[in-house]
Order: sequence, then C-alpha cells, then structure tokens
Amino acid sequence: MPKLLEKIESAIDLHGMNNADLAELATEIREVLCGLLSIRTAHFASNLGVVELCLALHSVFDFRSDRLIWDTGHQIYPHKLVTGRYADFASIRTQGGLMGYPNPQESQYDLFMTGHAGCSVSTALGLKSGDDLRGEKRKSVAVIGDGAFPSGIVFEALNNAGELSSDLLVILNDNRMSICPRVGSVARYLDRLRTNPFYTGLKSEVVRILNHVPVFGDPAERMLAQIKEGVKAGLHGGMLFEELGIHYVGPIDGHDIGLMRKYIKMVMDRPGPVLLHVVTEKGHGYKPAAQDPVFFHTPPIFRDEQGEARVQSSSSSPAFTNFARDAIGDAMRHDDRVTVLTAAMCQGNKLEPVREEFPDRFFDVGICESHAVAFAAGQAKAGLKPIVTIYSTFLQRSYDQIFQEVSLQNLPVVMMMDRAGLAGPDGPTHHGVFDIGYMRIFPNIISMAPGTGKEVGQMLDFALQCEQPTALRYPKAAAASLDIPEQPIALGKSQTARWGTDGAILGLGPMFEVALAAADKLAEEGLNIAVVNPRFIKPLDDEMLERVFTECRFVLTIEEGALHGGFGSAVLELACDKNWDTRCMRRMGIPDRYIEHGEREVLLSELGMSVDGVVSVCRELSGEFAGVL
Amino acid sequence: MPKLLEKIESAIDLHGMNNADLAELATEIREVLCGLLSIRTAHFASNLGVVELCLALHSVFDFRSDRLIWDTGHQIYPHKLVTGRYADFASIRTQGGLMGYPNPQESQYDLFMTGHAGCSVSTALGLKSGDDLRGEKRKSVAVIGDGAFPSGIVFEALNNAGELSSDLLVILNDNRMSICPRVGSVARYLDRLRTNPFYTGLKSEVVRILNHVPVFGDPAERMLAQIKEGVKAGLHGGMLFEELGIHYVGPIDGHDIGLMRKYIKMVMDRPGPVLLHVVTEKGHGYKPAAQDPVFFHTPPIFRDEQGEARVQSSSSSPAFTNFARDAIGDAMRHDDRVTVLTAAMCQGNKLEPVREEFPDRFFDVGICESHAVAFAAGQAKAGLKPIVTIYSTFLQRSYDQIFQEVSLQNLPVVMMMDRAGLAGPDGPTHHGVFDIGYMRIFPNIISMAPGTGKEVGQMLDFALQCEQPTALRYPKAAAASLDIPEQPIALGKSQTARWGTDGAILGLGPMFEVALAAADKLAEEGLNIAVVNPRFIKPLDDEMLERVFTECRFVLTIEEGALHGGFGSAVLELACDKNWDTRCMRRMGIPDRYIEHGEREVLLSELGMSVDGVVSVCRELSGEFAGVL
Repeated sequence: MPKLLEKIESAIDLHGMNNADLAELATEIREVLCGLLSIRTAHFASNLGVVELCLALHSVFDFRSDRLIWDTGHQIYPHKLVTGRYADFASIRTQGGLMGYPNPQESQYDLFMTGHAGCSVSTALGLKSGDDLRGEKRKSVAVIGDGAFPSGIVFEALNNAGELSSDLLVILNDNRMSICPRVGSVARYLDRLRTNPFYTGLKSEVVRILNHVPVFGDPAERMLAQIKEGVKAGLHGGMLFEELGIHYVGPIDGHDIGLMRKYIKMVMDRPGPVLLHVVTEKGHGYKPAAQDPVFFHTPPIFRDEQGEARVQSSSSSPAFTNFARDAIGDAMRHDDRVTVLTAAMCQGNKLEPVREEFPDRFFDVGICESHAVAFAAGQAKAGLKPIVTIYSTFLQRSYDQIFQEVSLQNLPVVMMMDRAGLAGPDGPTHHGVFDIGYMRIFPNIISMAPGTGKEVGQMLDFALQCEQPTALRYPKAAAASLDIPEQPIALGKSQTARWGTDGAILGLGPMFEVALAAADKLAEEGLNIAVVNPRFIKPLDDEMLERVFTECRFVLTIEEGALHGGFGSAVLELACDKNWDTRCMRRMGIPDRYIEHGEREVLLSELGMSVDGVVSVCRELSGEFAGVL
Repeated sequence: MPKLLEKIESAIDLHGMNNADLAELATEIREVLCGLLSIRTAHFASNLGVVELCLALHSVFDFRSDRLIWDTGHQIYPHKLVTGRYADFASIRTQGGLMGYPNPQESQYDLFMTGHAGCSVSTALGLKSGDDLRGEKRKSVAVIGDGAFPSGIVFEALNNAGELSSDLLVILNDNRMSICPRVGSVARYLDRLRTNPFYTGLKSEVVRILNHVPVFGDPAERMLAQIKEGVKAGLHGGMLFEELGIHYVGPIDGHDIGLMRKYIKMVMDRPGPVLLHVVTEKGHGYKPAAQDPVFFHTPPIFRDEQGEARVQSSSSSPAFTNFARDAIGDAMRHDDRVTVLTAAMCQGNKLEPVREEFPDRFFDVGICESHAVAFAAGQAKAGLKPIVTIYSTFLQRSYDQIFQEVSLQNLPVVMMMDRAGLAGPDGPTHHGVFDIGYMRIFPNIISMAPGTGKEVGQMLDFALQCEQPTALRYPKAAAASLDIPEQPIALGKSQTARWGTDGAILGLGPMFEVALAAADKLAEEGLNIAVVNPRFIKPLDDEMLERVFTECRFVLTIEEGALHGGFGSAVLELACDKNWDTRCMRRMGIPDRYIEHGEREVLLSELGMSVDGVVSVCRELSGEFAGVL
C-alpha cells in the first residue's frame, strides 16, 4: 500500500519531506503506475521517467502560486498523483474520469490543457510576463522533453525569452526519445552535452586554471581575451543556449532527487532565463519499459506476472492505420519517386516496416510539422511524390505551409491524416475534428475520406496520380470490409451503395458503414433509404447530390468532424448555389464544443452517430418530411 | 540608360561578366529601382540591399538547373531584373503585370511563390533531397533575412538539415532589420558575430598557434583536448550553427561583389549544409533609404528631386488600421492590464505611437506568430488582456496555438486581424481571405467584423470585456464613416441599418458600406432593400436572420473572404438547422481560387463586389424570386 501517497492531500505536503521520504514516495508512485498497466492503455514509459523530477519540483516550488507547465502533457501522471488526485487515479483516461493530460478543470495545479508539443516555453514566459506586469511574485517553470524541443515554437520562445531576460526556468527533460527514437541535429547536440566529461562542478576549476595561461608573445591582448572566452565557451556545454541568452546548467541525473533539489534551488532565484538539462530514462524503474520505451510509450493492456509483455489478441477488423501503412508500402514498391514523411509519429502510424524497407525514402523530421510540409513541397517540386503522414490535429501545426507551400503552389503533396475524428481516450487535444473545414477552405486541394479499409489504398493510388495536392482523412478505428460492388476512384465521384427514395444518407468515411447498417434496419421498417459513400469532400459529386436532393425525401449528412464549416456545410453551399431546397437536409457531426475523452464508440453514440442514433434520426426525418414533398 | 541591363536576356549572361562589370550592373539596377520609387509603392529598401548578393549568386550558379529560394520574397526585384524581366519591370505590382514576389508563372528562375517568411530553408532542403533521390546534380541555395531567421520553421529545417547532412547553402542576409528593427536574442547573437574581431582568414592562423599551446603539467590530456576544442569553438564565430551541424562561414561584406563570389565559390562545393553570413545594408546606395529603412520598406509614392521624401497627401477616409491603432491606444490608457503583441508588424499596423507610449506593455516578438499567440495565452491566464495584432494571412502561422492555447483553454485573447480581405498589390500570399472560415471552426471564439471605422473601437472594447477569445477582422482599406444611428455592440447582435422586404443584404465588414450604397441605388428603382451590418460572424444573430429569411424576398450575403466555409456558409448552416428555405439566398465573396495582385477596389469589382455589382445581383434576384414567395 502506498502509505506516503495516501496521505498527500496537496503538493505542498512535499515541502516537509526529506530526500529519503521523497525517494520512498517515488517508489510508491512507480508501483501505482505499474499497477495501472494491467488495466488500462495509457502513457507509461514517459511517466516512469519523470517521477523524481516531478517530486523535486513540487518539493521546492509552491505551484499553487508558482507556475508549472508540462509540455505535451502525457507525462502528467506523477504530478496528478501528488496534487490531490490519487484517489481518482484508477479512472484516468476513462470517460468522466481523470484526463491523461493536464486539465485545469481538475486541479489548480494544471494551468493549461496540453497535448500538442512545444508551447510550454511560450506559455510559461507569457505567465511570467503577466505576473510581472501585475506585480505578482511568482516563479515560472516549463518542463519540456527533448523530443518536443526542436519544435519551431520553442526556438521562437527562447529567442524572445533571451531578449526579455525574464526569470524563467526551462527544464529540458532529456530521455533521448520522442516516442520513436529522436532525430535531428539538436538531438545529436544533446548527446554531445551528455558525454561532455566536464561536469558543472569541474567547470569553474578549469576556468581558474585558464586564467593562468601565459600570454605567449604578442599577437595581441585582445586575441588572448578572445581565446579565453573561447575556452570558457567550449567548456561551457550549452553554447547553443548561452548564445541565445539562456543560461545553461547541467546535465544532471534526473533520478537523483537530492541532486535535482539542490540544482533547482540553485537556479530558481537566478535572474534571467535558465535552462536546466536533466537526464532521465524513459521507463525508469520498470525494466521492460526502460529496455523498450517505444513499445511502452502507450502499451496495450498486458499481464506482467513474469515481467513479460503479453499483448492481448484483438478480434476486431484491421485499423485504417494498417491499411494506410500497407498502401504506403505498396506505393513505394511500385514507384521510386514516392517518399514518406512523418513528424515523430512513425510508431503511431505503424510505419516501422516501411522505414525499414525504404530507409532512403523515409523521412522522420521530428516534432516539426511545419518543416515536414514545406520540405515535402520542395521534394514535390523536384519531381518526387511525397506522402506526409501527420495526425489530423497535429497537421494544424503546418497550416501556413499547407497554404503557401502546398495549396498556393499547387504541388502534388499527399497529406494522410490519421486520427481524423474522435481519437478516444486522449481527448480534445488529440481529436481530429477540424480538418474537413480547415482543409477545404484552400483552393487546389482534393480532399477524400475512405469509407472502407480497401479504399485507403485505392485513394492513395489515385492521389499519387494527381498533379495537385491531395488530402486523405481516416479515423483511429477499425476499417469496414463491406460486401459492396467494386467501383474505381474517380475525381469527385461518390459511390452509391444502395438506392431508395425515402431518404438518403451520405455517410462520410467511417460513417458510411454506420449509414449502411442503419439503412438495413430501416429497411426492416419498410423505409427504403439510399446510402452514399461520398468519398470526396472536395470536389463534391454534383450529379449524385442533385439526384438525392431531387428524388429523396430527405438528405442526411454524417461526418466525424466539426459541423461548422464541415462536409455538410459544403453540401449546403452547393445546394444554395444550385437552388436546391435544403429544408429536406439534416447534418450530423461534431457540435461546436470540445468533446471530452472516452472510448470513440461511446462518444460517437452520445452524439447520435451510432447505428441506432442514425436510425432514430432517419425515422424522425421521414415523418417530418412525409408531407413536404 | 542601363546599357548592361538591357542586354541581359537570362541570368546565365552574368557568368561572362567580371567584377567591374557586375559592379556597374549593380549601379544600373539601383537606378532602375530608384526610378520605380516615383511611380509606385513597392518594396524598396530590402531590394537595394541585395543587389550585389543577387548578382554574385547568378554569376556563380546556374539557376536554370540549380535551385534558388528567396525567403519571404519581397527582395526579388534585382533577381527579376536579371532573369529576363527588365522590359516588363515597370509593370511590377500592377494588375496583370509582374508580381512583387517570386512567381513561377513568370519565370523558370522563380521556384516558389513566397511572401510568408521562414520556409526557404525547408523548401531548399526538400528540393535538394528530391534532386539527390532522382540522381540530379543540382545545387540548392536559400537566401533568408535575419528578420525571418528566428521563425520557428527555420530552426526545424536546420535541425533536419544538420542531420541529413545534405549539401545546402543557406545565405543569411543580415541587414539588422525586419521591417521594424529586429528583436530577439538571435538578433543580438548576430550582432556579436558581426563585431567579432576574428575574421575567417585569421581563424586558421589562430588555430595553428593553438596547436603549440604546451600541456601544462597534468590535469589530463583529455582535458587539454577539450580546451583546444573549446578555443577553436570560441574562435569559430558561428557556434550556434556549428552546434546544429551547419558549417558557419562569415560574416562577409554583402556589397563587395568580388568577395562574395570568392566565398560563394569556396563554399558551394563543400559537402554538408553551410551557412554563409552576409552583412548588407537595407537601402544601400540610396542615402535616405539607408538612413530610414523602416519608412523606405514600402514607401508611398514620392518625389525625390532633393532626395527628400515628400509623401503625397491622401484625401481618402482614415484606414481601418488607424482606427484599430487608436482604439488599442485608448484601451491601454484605460486599463493597465491591456497588452499588445505584434510579430514584427509594428509599422504595418501603424503601432509606433503605442509602442512609444507603452513600452512595457508592447511586445514585438519578431516574425514568430506561433510564439506570439501562445505567449499571449500565458499573459491572459495570468490576468492580463492581451491584444494580438497579426495580419489575417500571417495568423495562419499560429493556427495550432489558436486551437490549443486560446480556443481550447477558452482564454480571453483578442486577435485583431488587419489585411482581412484582398490586400491589393501584394497579391495572393498577402490576401487575408481564409480567416472567417478557419477561425469559426474552433469553439469558444467570438468573431466580429466592424462595418465602420467607429465600430473597430467599439468592438475592441466589447472584446476586452469578454471572458473568452475574440477575433476582429478588418481590411486594408479606408473605413466608412456612415450616417446611421448609434447602436451599442451586443453579443451576437447585428445592426439593421435600413429595412425593406424586396430583399435583404447582409454586408459583412467593409461590404456593409457597399450594401448601403447599393440599396440607395436600388431604392431609386423602386426596390426596397433591407441592409444589415452583421457585426458578428459567430455567434450569428438568429433573430435578425429569421426575420430576413421569413420576410424578405431574397437574402444576399457579401463577405470579403473565401466563400468556402465563410460567413455565408455559416448563415446556410443556421438556415438548415432552423428549416428556413435557402432557395432565396445567394452568397457573394471570394471564389475558390487564388486572386492575383492588383488594386483592392479593382479586384473586388471584378468579383462583382462593387456597388454596381451588388445592384446588378439584387436586380436579378428580385426578378428571380419575384414568383417564389
């Protein structure tokens, strides 16, 4: 039983604890985290890695008034456990329970709901700026992983922090991982810092020796001064940061609580921005996780009686993600101009086999989505056929590059958006519900949503033949394998799976399967409903739409995306242009609010986007419009 | 007469020219640029600054096959002059004439249409990657200004370039400006590099001397090796870049053609990424511009007989921008929690007086829009009332921060979007036509568009009282001063300026004035048209909309924004939800294609969004719908 943890009501209780108590508490927290593993798919290895860091911070600062931002946020579990949420912890990532990310509605200790990487330095700096202007004496801390660190916004924030000289503590949590092994020259730089034999304690010693280096003859005193500065700089591991006006301290062992408390106390009152480089091990304290932190980032539920990971077998259909991965592999095998780009999501997109088979045409640029899209545009201009695989919600990070480098130049970049729809237990920061609207606004982009697993590959093949930008969206869900006649993909052409004039359902993407099942049920009630797989969000299928608007008693659009500006909205625009009567039309989709975390099927059901929900809406519509036409 | 320039048919002609010829050519180009000043508002000082750099590049590379990207692109004029466009040069920035930015449709020498900052390194790297994979021997060069350099995507690209070790030449055009004087710690760092007494030639000498530094006794050979590395590193000015795996060379004088050719030749065949630091003077060669490069960034037309800038007086109404600036100043005077943030657009937003009056609450973060919005969110969370002033098109660069840091947290950040609409001679990269759609997709954000100059201030006051995010959009245009009764701003409430049932025009923002004038004309023809200033894009005015849909013979929405997902689309969504007949509705706005450069009034007129255009549509609608109701 976690004796210490049970007694902690608020993080302020940690102030009275000594290093030994805190180490004991760390052990208890790890036990709780490991216990979670057997009941829940959750972020695991990253949380094991920050236990001591979290305790050290809370034992020194008072984050009821001081400011703490956990970048990305999936390493928030230890923080939740010591900020009054231990009793509810078993509910984490379940609907109505604790969120797997920081949530201001849960606790005053959570300031920002995060989930996308890289913004912590900006928000911590903004908080500090606000507190300073308001005359509040509060300290501000951002904890950011080395995976998130190369995100462009971090550089923008450091550039600004260096100029403002605000008192800001940035803790670089360096675990050498970014879900996948990290990439990029910043990562290599951090590796060099870690292997630098000059640790902080030694530095001042060496600098003292240097002050006795004799001036050898002339070239000039000015030169000597420069040399000395150069030596100091070279010894000072963090030149990259120092050059930006950020004082660098470290690296220090992130699992030594006493050492961390010492260093945090040392830098917390230092004026100006400080970067404290803390080295942690992802998965620390649980051997299988430390040895395979990629698998243990968000492992499936498994039994660990022998410390062995035993993945539970799943009986559901293969996920859209698998179809996408296989289609990408096939495309690369058939055309050596095809490249694939990912922003540190090789694992999430299940692309490891593709990376292994085509290392020269596989580009993981790190959590740098803006660069990924502009880089792809360059490749396309040079005659390649780049496929950018970025989750729907993260692709927002390259919005301006989609505009300028892709849409405006009309370059054949293929954007494959996984997690387009409700992402499930990750919640609002990960739901991908805005892409339909944000993408179709831009000229030149062809937008598609596969209705079946098979269509993923067909659409990718089609996209690779297009001489303009294309976008494919598909959810984190099992893909339907439907018994319907084959029909090749043609630009702006939908697939009418069944016909009937009592109403028509346009079920976009995964909603096609739902629509078919609903129509089957409605047929038993004597309603003959047309079911269309729209396939294309842009351009729309004018012919099909004219037919359903003129022949069917109602038209129902269903999309796993925001209603504002979405697919239904596009249909309305066309209907208005064509002078069709829209009073027979209804739209189902995500309403204008953030949807909490929970199982995708449950969330969809609550929004009426289940077979039963659709059946019930159709029943209502067929009654409502019975007299209209 | 520009004798040399006249003869240049293609940039390849520069290969045969010696340094003296090129210097003479530079003089001719400056004369042409200065000549342009008296006839056209155009980017001026930045172009004067890169003349020699441009000539040096074209005299060494062959950019018919090699790759050249001018970041941001407003410094493209010398490049256009030597790539076969001298004869058409007087047409620059006029409709149907040359664009003021790179344009692939004009020349094979222009690869990407740019205008937004920071993407050049990514696209040049992508081009190089593509050429390498396709087995093409081409070199790749990106020229980027120090103003654009701190943009996050540049860091992302360098991080990737350092890892890929691609042969890439990045030329840092350091003119110490970013329209406004540049800011941030990267800028300070570049200043230090410029004042470093160790120039490239000297470095190897010093390193040679260092190899003779005696080992003084023990501490260890390992330590000595480290010290030497440190010294070398310190002497090597560009540690920030070297640490990222980018070889740094410079700084060199960017107005010495011979020197630049020498250095470019030296680095062009070096393997791996190289950053060549070139120091230029913005406005070089024209004294007034060199002395006041901010004014001369895009100066108004003026006569320079005595080298004096004499701004032509303008008789038009004050611009929306002026109303915004005054409103921001007023707000800051009345509430010391109000801050203002800009991303290097202090001048474009005419905010200099505000910066001067409130230096502590004015934040110019440089061309770092992502950081600007996240930083503002931090300030808002700390209890301030930040106003972010970013052009509509550039705010796309913070799309993910608008999502996560502002909308999801529901924080009271005010986003003021200037240049919302057709930006005129800058063309497609600067038109701000997507914000209505991209903003209304996100929950929690209140979106407004002032119809008059006065409303800018009223709406800002309203926004500052809101406890949630707000957005204001207004165009680069004179603001109407209309003789209509005062009506305070209330959430989701429109203003009906005149009533009539022959039709209703909802004229969003500046289209309100157009709608009123059209209604006046139509009244002369006996048509009694209602005119509504919608004020709110979100939430919509249900009551007003119900009234016009049920009482007026037609409803026409006009917006200076993309029709896809726009204001009219929002009205259609509501109409569908409310079961109103949309067959009486028409939408006017920007169609689904990129609009070229030209005077805003002319472009609008061509899209039918002039008084006459609206009159004619209303006439047609009133005939068309005469029989429907």
